[in-house]
Amino acid sequence: MSVTVVGSIAYDRVETPFGRCERMLGGAATHFALAASFFDEVRVVGPVGDDFADNDLAILQTRGTSTEDVERVPGGKTFFWHGEYGWDLNSRETHDTQLGVFEHFEPKLGEASRSSDVLFLANIQPDVQRGVREQCPDARFVALDSMNLWIDIARDSLVRTIGEVDCLILNDAELRQLTAKPNLVQAAREVLAMGPSVVVAKQGEYGAALITADAFFALPAYPLESVVDPTGAGDTFAGGFVGYLAAQSGERDDATLRRAMAYGTALASFNVEEFGTKRVARLTSDEIGERVRDLQRITHFEDAPVELRA
Amino acid sequence: MSVTVVGSIAYDRVETPFGRCERMLGGAATHFALAASFFDEVRVVGPVGDDFADNDLAILQTRGTSTEDVERVPGGKTFFWHGEYGWDLNSRETHDTQLGVFEHFEPKLGEASRSSDVLFLANIQPDVQRGVREQCPDARFVALDSMNLWIDIARDSLVRTIGEVDCLILNDAELRQLTAKPNLVQAAREVLAMGPSVVVAKQGEYGAALITADAFFALPAYPLESVVDPTGAGDTFAGGFVGYLAAQSGERDDATLRRAMAYGTALASFNVEEFGTKRVARLTSDEIGERVRDLQRITHFEDAPVELRA
Repeated sequence: MSVTVVGSIAYDRVETPFGRCERMLGGAATHFALAASFFDEVRVVGPVGDDFADNDLAILQTRGTSTEDVERVPGGKTFFWHGEYGWDLNSRETHDTQLGVFEHFEPKLGEASRSSDVLFLANIQPDVQRGVREQCPDARFVALDSMNLWIDIARDSLVRTIGEVDCLILNDAELRQLTAKPNLVQAAREVLAMGPSVVVAKQGEYGAALITADAFFALPAYPLESVVDPTGAGDTFAGGFVGYLAAQSGERDDATLRRAMAYGTALASFNVEEFGTKRVARLTSDEIGERVRDLQRITHFEDAPVELRA
Repeated sequence: MSVTVVGSIAYDRVETPFGRCERMLGGAATHFALAASFFDEVRVVGPVGDDFADNDLAILQTRGTSTEDVERVPGGKTFFWHGEYGWDLNSRETHDTQLGVFEHFEPKLGEASRSSDVLFLANIQPDVQRGVREQCPDARFVALDSMNLWIDIARDSLVRTIGEVDCLILNDAELRQLTAKPNLVQAAREVLAMGPSVVVAKQGEYGAALITADAFFALPAYPLESVVDPTGAGDTFAGGFVGYLAAQSGERDDATLRRAMAYGTALASFNVEEFGTKRVARLTSDEIGERVRDLQRITHFEDAPVELRA
């Protein structure tokens, strides 16, 4: 069993009120792979330039992640993003995006990547995502991320792509935008009607919600006293969520999906504790298990009969 | 045992993208009383004007709520608020506030209201709240609400008032503003250091979080397909939360506080289903119990051992 992820591998410059990092390994596929590799073998598909450092390739390969399909484009430059977060880390401004080798990226999946049981289509142009989906006809569970840009300029293509996946993982504001429904439950139902059987609404510091035809599950974010850099939290969440499902052979009954949410939430909480991939790169299995148990404690309550007045 | 609430009794004009209501019963004390009266005897302290209708007084008296200390000011006008909500119901604009009899409100508590075991100080000028607190020296559990206005113009007084209560119930954005801490856990710890032993952060559509010295608990809002009018949701939550604790004789161990959060969340979810007090006014005990059980289902997950890769 393995998980294939197709998406960006990047260098990020990030500024927050609490510090800055000039150049660090980032990108959706990177964050996803670091998280998902705790659960299953990961195969990364994405382009890098000549400037991509060997030690960053080594980080990508953590826990045996295959970089066979990481394409090094001669003369090319690795995708670069420069962003800055506001005081409460909820607002972020993009100062610079240099697509570099990502601009003309045409994902070419090797035989092994095409045969993965589980596929994660990180945020890219939806036509490209659909092309990858077609290269993996046998995948038993395909999850998709996207962003407001594609809703703005390529909504029809995005809706077609959504129609060919099992699970959409999107920020809740983007779910509202996509469906023009301000209500989360209604928005999720619209997406379920487009094809997927699972919708995950990422709610940033408030956690995430899971909506299927039969169930609604919500989990708060793990409460941290110090959040340093939110970059990559969503992809790390997806790595934990999709990776957990992959390790369960793509099973997706309600109980399994809920556990996957807990692992995604736990992984994401580590990601934001330090800049870039630093914290997750040295994370241990024990720490993950502990945080999942903490999440149970944080959300658990026992009802007890109370006499209500009439 | 009884709960005394001191706060506004109002007429509201509310516009949302889904409808409008020209004039309806509202106010913090009203919403609180309707919710809390499911759990315990409520005593309302607040002023109304000549224009206050008898049938609205009857609604206040639902489930035996005492209006003995509702002061009818001759020649006065009941507090009036006119607000409008945006598309996603998260943003709201105040078009008009006519304080009326509320402007010179000096709460006078009768003997019975002063001897309540539990006291809720709804959002009013913090000096006035402190005056009421002093009238109830024997209350075993005192909870406080406030708003951004008082943080802006009367922060010192508010902090003094916070120092004399057991529980602060505040919107999470206001907690950040009050403490100048963008991080919720840090903000809550600052408040705990001011005196209270319990902090509740209201997070609107995302639910609410409970922070004590020993524990963190978070509960999502009940997922509704249709939200009509969020006005009063916070006070209805407080009514369920504080009312539940009052029915437990002011007990506030961790398990009891968590259950109180669930009852507050359930009550608030009914409040927003229709304009003003309409939905809660005809609510039944069975419906509340059912929604609390739903909240358990919505938040429950079982961990199961998963082999993590090293």
